[in-house]
Amino acid sequence: MIRHTVVFTLKHAAGSPEEQAFLGDALILERIPGVEKFERLRQVSPKADFDFGFSMEFADQAAYRSYNDHPDHVAFVRDRWVPEVLRFQEIDYVAL
Amino acid sequence: MIRHTVVFTLKHAAGSPEEQAFLGDALILERIPGVEKFERLRQVSPKADFDFGFSMEFADQAAYRSYNDHPDHVAFVRDRWVPEVLRFQEIDYVAL
Repeated sequence: MIRHTVVFTLKHAAGSPEEQAFLGDALILERIPGVEKFERLRQVSPKADFDFGFSMEFADQAAYRSYNDHPDHVAFVRDRWVPEVLRFQEIDYVAL
Repeated sequence: MIRHTVVFTLKHAAGSPEEQAFLGDALILERIPGVEKFERLRQVSPKADFDFGFSMEFADQAAYRSYNDHPDHVAFVRDRWVPEVLRFQEIDYVAL
């Protein structure tokens, strides 16, 4: 199991229609084959300067690579992530 | 539900007895009342400069506060975390 997470802050104002559109349209990622346990999260620690997170799991590295290369992921990164995300940090976990 | 995570790098050399001792002794945190789904994880993204992670869930903020104030947590932070952790980032999530 590989848990892929990304914590991020949008360029959009909190509560704006653009923010809601981004978070809603991100659900396309959940439908990419191999994606398990997809979650959209709010980051709430005052010690972290990020507002949101996505978390998903893959059975193995092949499934993770397939997701990364999937046209819907490539298009989301190009058309939405890059223009709309202010800063982010990827963190990927496997069991110890 | 609140998911409390911390991603970190130890001062110890990879594979050292001190590293193993820290990761093993951290299991004391799992036994603190209110802690659910405790996980010790390896951080594997080349885009994140951290080696390990802990993840746990709490039913609510009261359970999270109780964990933070628990003597076993306070002692672990004072006696192990502060002297042995090189850098870390807390990230806490709630459902969107």
